[in-house]
Amino acid sequence: MTIGTGTGGNGKPIASTTSVLRVMNERAVYERIRLDGPISRPEVAQATGLSKPTVSLALADLERTGLVRTVGHRTGNAGRAAMLYEIHPTAGRVIGIDVGREWVRAAMSGLDGKPVVRRDVRSQARSASALIDQLAGLVDELSAEAGIAPGEVTYIVLGTPGVHDAENNRLLLAPNLPGWQRPGVTLELAERLPAPCLIENDISLAALGEQAHGLGAEVDNFVFLSIGTGIGMGIVLDGRLYRGARGAAGEVAFLPVGETDPLTRSPEAKRHGMLESVLSAAGLVATASRFGMPGRLTVKKVYDAARAGDPIALEAVQYEAGNISRALASVIALLDPQLIVIGGGLGRHGVDVLLDAVRERLADMTPLDPPPIRPSALAEEATVVGALAVGLATALDIVFNRAVAEPAVG
Amino acid sequence: MTIGTGTGGNGKPIASTTSVLRVMNERAVYERIRLDGPISRPEVAQATGLSKPTVSLALADLERTGLVRTVGHRTGNAGRAAMLYEIHPTAGRVIGIDVGREWVRAAMSGLDGKPVVRRDVRSQARSASALIDQLAGLVDELSAEAGIAPGEVTYIVLGTPGVHDAENNRLLLAPNLPGWQRPGVTLELAERLPAPCLIENDISLAALGEQAHGLGAEVDNFVFLSIGTGIGMGIVLDGRLYRGARGAAGEVAFLPVGETDPLTRSPEAKRHGMLESVLSAAGLVATASRFGMPGRLTVKKVYDAARAGDPIALEAVQYEAGNISRALASVIALLDPQLIVIGGGLGRHGVDVLLDAVRERLADMTPLDPPPIRPSALAEEATVVGALAVGLATALDIVFNRAVAEPAVG
Repeated sequence: MTIGTGTGGNGKPIASTTSVLRVMNERAVYERIRLDGPISRPEVAQATGLSKPTVSLALADLERTGLVRTVGHRTGNAGRAAMLYEIHPTAGRVIGIDVGREWVRAAMSGLDGKPVVRRDVRSQARSASALIDQLAGLVDELSAEAGIAPGEVTYIVLGTPGVHDAENNRLLLAPNLPGWQRPGVTLELAERLPAPCLIENDISLAALGEQAHGLGAEVDNFVFLSIGTGIGMGIVLDGRLYRGARGAAGEVAFLPVGETDPLTRSPEAKRHGMLESVLSAAGLVATASRFGMPGRLTVKKVYDAARAGDPIALEAVQYEAGNISRALASVIALLDPQLIVIGGGLGRHGVDVLLDAVRERLADMTPLDPPPIRPSALAEEATVVGALAVGLATALDIVFNRAVAEPAVG
Repeated sequence: MTIGTGTGGNGKPIASTTSVLRVMNERAVYERIRLDGPISRPEVAQATGLSKPTVSLALADLERTGLVRTVGHRTGNAGRAAMLYEIHPTAGRVIGIDVGREWVRAAMSGLDGKPVVRRDVRSQARSASALIDQLAGLVDELSAEAGIAPGEVTYIVLGTPGVHDAENNRLLLAPNLPGWQRPGVTLELAERLPAPCLIENDISLAALGEQAHGLGAEVDNFVFLSIGTGIGMGIVLDGRLYRGARGAAGEVAFLPVGETDPLTRSPEAKRHGMLESVLSAAGLVATASRFGMPGRLTVKKVYDAARAGDPIALEAVQYEAGNISRALASVIALLDPQLIVIGGGLGRHGVDVLLDAVRERLADMTPLDPPPIRPSALAEEATVVGALAVGLATALDIVFNRAVAEPAVG
């Protein structure tokens, strides 16, 4: 958060201790109202420890700038009914987008964090320029549906596979999004969007979504393993997202697996990672075919057959469980997490068939009891939820600084 | 650090803002002298931003309590020669001990962090009580050699294999130290020692040693892989030791490796971990025997033979390199470190033969360039160096609080 300089009555900027304090106090009042509103003035004073005159001054300024509004009086109490305050949810807008190979999932929220518009569309991932067009169009559509101009969007967070190489404005390790390894491509995207944006790994956002509104809320150390078109892991350590030296932490696609598996020796495996080549949707289907399942397979077909007792499908699923177990045994040996959350397409189709087998194998591979392994509470929403949560924090800073800390001089 | 309450002139404890400020200022002055001494009063004022009268008051108190002493005047300058101050290194004593299966390595330092006494002895690890006797005796011997009573030791840090289960006062996952899994055993040790102590994983301390005085000084994210009697990893993320939910982070002995290896299916492998069973000293010797090397082998013999071109020894070393590479590929995929440091017995005997093979394989297994892999700068000293560094930080707190923040009332 930037704390700017205040503006004196004569229009001359001043940077006094008083103005910095005033901004800090207003932020504290705003944050309290955001978290606890509707809330009365005495309650704000109580919760912040600020004096009542200070709270009154802050409230007046927050109301004047449109960040806070009154919502009637508290009823049913003895004595004078207290005026109640809440934040103005539409003083800012956040868009979160999960940019996947198959689907683009997008949502818009106000500053209360509640999604007001939601849209899923098939991904135009055949080229980077088609996808950029689609994403820019989607932001316009969401804005129209919310009844605002695109320029009124405060902040946009995009979750993508791979690692954002911010120096060269491109994605690394995102083979499922053709064209995005070209230098400059993420800058092209940013220039097409009507608001400042952040590009973050999709599974890292899913982990942060789970931390904000899912299973990760109560633990300091957990990982989110996503198994779907690709595989990836978001890592939260000591309460914070862990990114690694180059942003490539959690690139579990490149965990080594048994070299005896023919799938891990293909050129595809070199590009997508050894573990991804066996564990992704395509890997599971290839394994089932190799074991002898006939016909044109999908992940859903393999899991449905296993659920119905088909022995070849069961063998393929056991094989998948073995690879997941080895991956998770590595995670446990290195990170000792309190919780493992499983998401991605697997969370939708196979988790009931797989998880017991995984738990049983892990108990045999880990020296201490393995941590709980649970399907994501947010399923395919996790990345969008995380994008909105990350975007909300930044949008609150932007909106507050524009209105209070850095008001236009004049 | 605990900031205690001051004592007023009438002997009544007061907790005024003034006394808290005085303690904070004295700590800042002490820390500055410790890091930059010998240093003059004006230089302390300059470096801390405190006023000259405040620095003078602090210096007077620090001298009176014996934490700081004068060391003559600066010479060769024009004008009045300034009095120089440094900390009293013997105002506190730290002992660091690396408790291993084969060796116990111990050192004592003063508050300047410089080891003044150093002793390595064969470990009496056949039972916990024998080892406790040995450790208590060692502390007495180090004290005698330094010319102090054991009661004058300020703080002791012990590095051991495994995970300290502080709730039950025992070690978990330390099969190389028989008897230490018994509840209460670490409490027995603590009661035999003449000063407060900390028990920390030996390889975590080695990583902190490397951070304090070795290769880790310049990087935020690195791992220290130790390969010797056992194997283990210390993990420093964002500049801090990462311990995991139960203190079991970095227990790489339990990384899964190829299930086709007969060594990984033994009961020993279940107890020691799959990777440890193939990668430790005993694992390498077993592999070389299995491949056909005759006679009674040691790690040194295998590496010497490989260095001399023996084809079977080379095959065993290549096999070892493959397992190290797979372990490090897992570490890179999950943690994306800036640096990998290799220590333990391997650092002494085999690093020249192995590291090139490991680097070559890793380049083929990782999607981005693998980070540099370097032999420990501290070799077998790493754990003791880390123990002294961790102990020094706590000892400084203890000594300062006794002398300044919590002086005896009276």
